[in-house]
Parts: sequence; C-alpha cells; structure tokens
Amino acid sequence: MRGYTMKKDDYSARLRRIEGQVRGLQRMIDEDTYCIDVLTQVSAVTKALQSVAVGLLDEHVRHCVANADEGKSDEMITEAVRAIERLVRS
Amino acid sequence: MRGYTMKKDDYSARLRRIEGQVRGLQRMIDEDTYCIDVLTQVSAVTKALQSVAVGLLDEHVRHCVANADEGKSDEMITEAVRAIERLVRS
Amino acid sequence: MRGYTMKKDDYSARLRRIEGQVRGLQRMIDEDTYCIDVLTQVSAVTKALQSVAVGLLDEHVRHCVANADEGKSDEMITEAVRAIERLVRS
Amino acid sequence: MRGYTMKKDDYSARLRRIEGQVRGLQRMIDEDTYCIDVLTQVSAVTKALQSVAVGLLDEHVRHCVANADEGKSDEMITEAVRAIERLVRS
Repeated sequence: MRGYTMKKDDYSARLRRIEGQVRGLQRMIDEDTYCIDVLTQVSAVTKALQSVAVGLLDEHVRHCVANADEGKSDEMITEAVRAIERLVRS
Repeated sequence: MRGYTMKKDDYSARLRRIEGQVRGLQRMIDEDTYCIDVLTQVSAVTKALQSVAVGLLDEHVRHCVANADEGKSDEMITEAVRAIERLVRS
Repeated sequence: MRGYTMKKDDYSARLRRIEGQVRGLQRMIDEDTYCIDVLTQVSAVTKALQSVAVGLLDEHVRHCVANADEGKSDEMITEAVRAIERLVRS
Repeated sequence: MRGYTMKKDDYSARLRRIEGQVRGLQRMIDEDTYCIDVLTQVSAVTKALQSVAVGLLDEHVRHCVANADEGKSDEMITEAVRAIERLVRS
C-alpha cells in the first residue's frame, strides 16, 4: 500500500502544475529569457517538487506508525530515512 | 543577452526530458506506485533540474567575465550570487 | 525522551570531529588558503552535519513507531516532517 | 591570491560563531535535549556555513571578473562552478 491514497488528487494537481512550470522553462529558453530569471523559475520548480516529496514522506511515516504492529515498519523506516538522505543531498 | 545561446538546443532537450519525468511521476501516483519509489524519482528530477541550473550559472559567470570591461558585470555578479543562494537553499 | 540514547557517544564523537573541521576552516582563512579549497572543506562539514541530522531523524522516527500506542506520535511525526523540511531547504 | 582578503576578519568571526554553535550541539546531546530541537540547531549551523560559502563564491567570481584579462579566469570559473555544484548537492 502506498499510504497516500487520500490525497491522490492533490498530488496529481501539483504535478500537473509542475509539468506546466517545466514547459514554461522551455518557453523561457526558446524566447532567450534572461538567464537569472530562468534560474529563479528553476528554484521555484525545485521547491514545488520538494513539497511533493515532503508530503509523500509525511504520509509514509504516518503509515509506518499506524501499522507499527505488523512488523514491517523497521524496513519501511530504513527506506524512508534513505529517501530523506537522497532528498537532503539532492 | 542571455549568455547561453550556444547550448540552447541542449537545454531544450534536457527540459523536455524533465517534462517527461514529471509526467512519469503523475503516472506513478495514478498507478499507486510505492511511495519510496516515487520519492526516488522526485530526487532524480530535482537533480536534473539542478544540472540545468548549474549549466546556466556556468554560462552566466563566463559571460560576466567575457564582458568584464562593459561595467555591467558588478550588478550581474550580484544577481548570479543571489541565484546561487536560492539554489543552495532550494 | 530523546530517542537516541544508545548512540550518544557516536554523536558526541562526530560533533567533536565537526568542531575540529570548523577550526580547520578558521586556519584555512588565517593562512589565505585558496578560496575553492575552503569551499570544498565547507561542503565536507555540511555533509557531516547532515549525516548527524539524518541519524537523529532515523532514531526519532523509530521512536515514534515504537511508541505508536501512546497517542503522542501524531504530534511527533508532524515535528519530524517539519524538521525534514528545514533540512531539505537548508 | 585568495580573493577575499578584505573580509578576512568577518569570515573568522563567523567561523568562530559556528564553532560555538557546534559546541552547543555537543552540549545538547550531552544533556539529552529533545531530538527535534537538536535538528533545528543543526539546520541553523548548516545555514550559517552556507552563508560563508556563498560569501566566498561571491568574492571568487568578482576576482575572476576583475582579473579577466590575465587569461586564468577560464580555469577559475570552472573550479567555481564545480564548487557551486558541490554546495547545491550538499
């Protein structure tokens, strides 16, 4: 189980918006937009992606806690911590 | 002047690939992919975006140096450093 | 309860090493070390700090799961996720 | 030449403060401070280190531009961009 079923629509909406932002970046490159303005937009997209990631982590951890008695949480927490590590370093 | 004219096609190609990755994320959510796998993919997209950003910064700084005698570089460097700051913090 | 009692010595040892690295940075500045080499060392210290942070988070989340039945985990997870957010953005 | 001679005292003062913050972290661990509060402090130290890094980069890039005619700036910019990359990823 994914653990984020309840907000599926929310994630989809955010990712569609991010897809639009990436297309916006392509347009900026096509139209020779000033490099610093492109960078500002790249930072905005990165932040939006990180918000999605933090949301997924939130639900994953809650899922681990809610299913603490099923004996699988140890492995799931290890996976979560590795994912946090990748995010912090990316 | 943008300062990255020569690699315009390269940036466009990368951004199209990133757009495809974001659509891939939407599919993962639709298909209830295991949350940790979604997070791995989010980290990959973030890294790809940061590579684009570092490439743009590279060219911007070279542009500042190449046009050092035009007296505009001071302001352009300040903008670049602020962009670096936003990237480091995003 | 902190939730990281068992590795207390390990954290202390790491932080002492980080303190030594920060003193090393001061020496580098004093001795006019080439700026890029200072930056490489700053990145090393940042990574060492983030490892400490990820270790603390790991134990905090495990603590939440281990004490899932005490009804306090909801608040503790919210705090953990906010801490992750600050780390990802710092 | 380092390129940051003029602010040497400022960097030293900041690094001494960071050293104090790292010692503060050791005390927090010794005194069994709540893990989330330790994490908040780790984020503060990381941010302080990144400010030092951004300051060094600022001066390095200005130094490259100021010495643009000496033919060494190409290599120095490449080094700077690699340093930015390490920072963005750390």
